[in-house]
Formats: sequence, structure tokens, C-alpha cells
Amino acid sequence: MSARGTLLLTGATGFIGRPLAARLAARGWRVVGTTARAVPAEVPGIAAMERADLTDAASARALIARVRPNALVHAAWTTTPGRFWADPANLAWLEGGIALLDAFGAAGGERAVGLGTCAEYEAGAERLDEATTPLRPATLYGAAKAALFHAGTAAAMAHGVSFAWARVFTPYGADEPEGKLVGSVARALLAGRPVETTQGTQLRDFLHVEDVAEAIAALVDGGVEGPVNVGSGEAVSLRDVIARISALTGGGERVAFGARPRPPHDPDSMVAAVERLTREVGFRPAIPLDEGLARTIAALASRMRHEQTEPEEARP
Amino acid sequence: MSARGTLLLTGATGFIGRPLAARLAARGWRVVGTTARAVPAEVPGIAAMERADLTDAASARALIARVRPNALVHAAWTTTPGRFWADPANLAWLEGGIALLDAFGAAGGERAVGLGTCAEYEAGAERLDEATTPLRPATLYGAAKAALFHAGTAAAMAHGVSFAWARVFTPYGADEPEGKLVGSVARALLAGRPVETTQGTQLRDFLHVEDVAEAIAALVDGGVEGPVNVGSGEAVSLRDVIARISALTGGGERVAFGARPRPPHDPDSMVAAVERLTREVGFRPAIPLDEGLARTIAALASRMRHEQTEPEEARP
Repeated sequence: MSARGTLLLTGATGFIGRPLAARLAARGWRVVGTTARAVPAEVPGIAAMERADLTDAASARALIARVRPNALVHAAWTTTPGRFWADPANLAWLEGGIALLDAFGAAGGERAVGLGTCAEYEAGAERLDEATTPLRPATLYGAAKAALFHAGTAAAMAHGVSFAWARVFTPYGADEPEGKLVGSVARALLAGRPVETTQGTQLRDFLHVEDVAEAIAALVDGGVEGPVNVGSGEAVSLRDVIARISALTGGGERVAFGARPRPPHDPDSMVAAVERLTREVGFRPAIPLDEGLARTIAALASRMRHEQTEPEEARP
Repeated sequence: MSARGTLLLTGATGFIGRPLAARLAARGWRVVGTTARAVPAEVPGIAAMERADLTDAASARALIARVRPNALVHAAWTTTPGRFWADPANLAWLEGGIALLDAFGAAGGERAVGLGTCAEYEAGAERLDEATTPLRPATLYGAAKAALFHAGTAAAMAHGVSFAWARVFTPYGADEPEGKLVGSVARALLAGRPVETTQGTQLRDFLHVEDVAEAIAALVDGGVEGPVNVGSGEAVSLRDVIARISALTGGGERVAFGARPRPPHDPDSMVAAVERLTREVGFRPAIPLDEGLARTIAALASRMRHEQTEPEEARP
């Protein structure tokens, strides 16, 4: 065991989990990861990988009994592209998450951080603030995450656990789940395909996933409790982001703005108040949006060249 | 089956459940109650009583499969006097409640109402408002209830259930749980015992339990969705309430205000904004505070006379 103790990271092969594992390991934690995959991928920083179905309460409790972690970061959740907003599986993830947090505290765990979402908040023109913006999720996904926030708070009170809840805004990066904006626009433009988008007036708060991972790692170690927004604090329109991707890929003339309608429950603005993250956690983003987009596009372009020259079954 | 269909009322032998059963039956529902008691009490309005452990998810799901209700009012919860604020059992009630609401929707249930609490809110000087006051429970009890509110919302979205959440403020009545203010002060003064209280400057929102039951029954039938405060909307200090009880029992000189310290997490003010209840549900209290206190004291006095003349085992 490392000097820091054992940290259980659920969803360790996921979009945020993977870079987070490396950063937690670099901070001295012995990181035990979980994955639902039959054949777990190699994840840098992971000392051991546990296979677990965290939609099942008994399985979640058994996992804690096996690993006996000192700290817990619960990053696993349903992220099925296009489906997760309204997926009834959110309820099973909620039930499993409550069991996980309860068992962690009951077994003497000390510090837990859960991954929440800006979709818990009532969307509005103002920056969304942990202390003053009401939680009024418009989606099943947001409601289940808000429920786990309060349930985690309750479990922490029951067992004397130090508990924080990272409300992640709009993370992006080359490994982001299929169907997310940056990756899908960049891939299409790199492949020479046309892109149909909404008018793109929606304001969002983008943060490169490496910065998201660093913010969460700093939150784990800093000991701040309660909800903490994880975002850049900068409002950027989707149109602006798409235009930057176009400029970086040289595919601007193939973007048809306004060709697609806005999806239901698509808020005008989701931008983080980042005072807690900045002042209390002490985190500031290291990767500006242009740099993060350039990195993402370079990684995707390299991967696409690789895909074209490798047989299908060799893809990661 | 009645014309309205079957309504499952959990906690039917409880302080709010009992008067609620009668009112729901009077509105045409076939009311199936649940109780955790081995020998269920007779409850007016209940067509059938089911014994169920609703802290157990499998037991909650089995209950829904047996009863197949059209509507659900989830009033059962841990209310152990003096303990429920910090009782880890709140987590088991949360887990069981999620299973109950999920199974209800999955089985084709149409209308569900859960019982919440003013303790979900961040306390403050303003009236606590469903739309604008953040949820920031200071207690394990409040956090678990806030979690079930969001979880119930998620389950309702998953299954197309119409879902409302009644945030009850300070109900009172002769059957209130042991240790609550009105009953304990009234019993002591009626028995000629001294009463030691805090300074009593705290503002609360008292509503007689018969009015609480009527408000919830109207909410069930009215179809309003989301959180609805159930209170009078009138701020009354505890000192004022105690003074009124003293006047009604003639025991004023035996009240020592300030003899006890304020408990931790005891907010200065918990008063409901009642616009939703008044305008959308169409409920107005029928029992003013003085009348409700007089009724409560008369019922307690009668019960105490009865207790003095009956052997111990004959008590209800």
C-alpha cells in the first residue's frame, strides 16, 4: 500500500476516469480501478483493476468489502450515446451508487468524491452557482445525479465521511463518448464529410478532460466538501467552438449551421461559477480552449490515419 | 375495486397516514395501507392492510407486484423520536423508497405523491419557496428526503408517472410522535409537570394534521407535479405556541423559557411559501392554530384521563 492509501476509482476506463487514474497515482494514491468490461483495457496509473457491475447494490457492497479503500472517486455511470439523458438505467446507477457510498462509509472510508453534472441545475442566464442556483434537473440523467448528490451527502453524514461532489460542465477531448460535439464535428470535418448543426447560439462551459481530471484530483486531495463546479467559467457558444474546429481542420465551408433543430431540454446557457474551484480547491485550467481543440484534433487525425491502415479488429 | 382505482398508502398507521387514509377513501379511492407492525391497528378508510418492510428494496418491489396500485402515496419513513434526524436508517428508507417508486411506475402506476419535509431546504429568513429556495439539508433526514425527491422525479420520468412531492412543514395533533413540541408541552402541563424550553424565538409553520391530510389528498387528486409545500404560510414563534398551550391548559407559570439550549441545526425560521398549495392545489387550511391546539389538548386530556383509569396493556 502506498503512503496515501488505497483509492477506489470506478469507471477507470472511461473518458474522465482514464486521465484521472494517472493523476491520482502521480499524487501518491494506490489506485484500484473498476470497469464493467470483460477484458479491461490497460490504464496508466491503475495498480489493480476490478470487474464490477455497479448498477447492482450487492455487487457494489461486495466491491468495497474486497478493496477496503481509504478514498473513493465514483466516476462510473451510464453514458450510452444519445440514450443516457433519458435512459431508465440511470435509476439502477443511482441505486448502485447509494449502496457504494454507504458501504464505503460503513467500512471506514474517509474521503469520497462523486461525479455530478451541470444538468442537475436549473439552467439560466446567470452562471450556475453551487450555493444559490436551485437544482431542477430537466432530464432523467440530471435528476438521478441530483439524487445521488443528496444521497451521498446523507451517507457521508451517517458515517462521518468527508464528501465532495464534482459537477462537471462540458468536458471534451479525443476520447470523449461517441456523439459528443467536439469529437463528432472534428471527425466529420477531418474525413471531408459535411456537418449539420443547430444555429449554435447555446452557451456552454468547455474544459479539456485533462484539466477536468486535474481539478477532480485536486478536489480529492484538498478536502473541500459539498458541491464544486468543474468548468472553465468561460461562456463559449457552440457556433464559436465549431468555427474554431473548422479553422483548425480547414473544413469551414462544410458546416451547415441551422440545418438541425435544437433538441428538447437543450438550455440556452450552462456556464459554471468557478469561485469554489478557484479559491477553495485552488485549481485553474492549464489548457486554453484553442490549445485543447488543437490537441484533440491532432489526436483524432492521428487515430483516423491509424484506423485507415489497420484492420478493424486492431482498433482500441 | 372502486371507480377511482386502488391507491397504496404506505405508513397508513402513522401520524399523517391515518387521517390521510380516511380522506382518500372519502374521495373514492380503494385504499390499501401498509404497516410495519405485526398486529396492524384498525385504520378508518383502509380496505386492506399489507405488512411490508419498506427499508428493503425487494420487499418494496414485491408489495407493488401484490397490490398493483393505480396511485401511490409514500408516507412511511423512520420517525424514531429524537433519533430520526441523524438515524442511518434514513439511508435504508431512501433505498426502499426508490425501489418502491421505480416498481410502481414499471407496473403501470399513474400518480404518485411522496412525503418530503421543510428540512430539505436551506433555512433562511425568507419564506421557503419550491422554485427559488435551494435544497441544502443540514441533517441526514433532510438529505435522504431530498435524495428521494430527485430519485422519485427520475423514476417518474422513466415511466411516465405523474409525480408530486409534498414538503410538510410542522404538522401537529394529538397523535404526533413522542417528543414533538405541541404534544410534549401539552401533556406535561396537563399533568402538572414543569416544562423547560429554549427561548422559543424560532419561527415555524404549524398546520393541524387533519389539514395536512386534506392538503395531501387534494394534491393526489389535483394532479399538480413537482414539489409543493404543505404548511399554513404563517410564521409563529415556538414561544407563542407554548404560550397558547399554557393559556389553554392553565399551566403558564410552569414553563421555564430559556432553560434549555437550542439543539444543533435548529434553524431560526422554517416558514412555507404556500402559493402553489393555495393557487395550484386549491387548498386552504380549515383549522386555525387556536382551534387546532384546543382540539389537540382536549384529545390529549381525554386520553390521559383514560390512561389513568385503564390498565397499561389496554392503551392503544
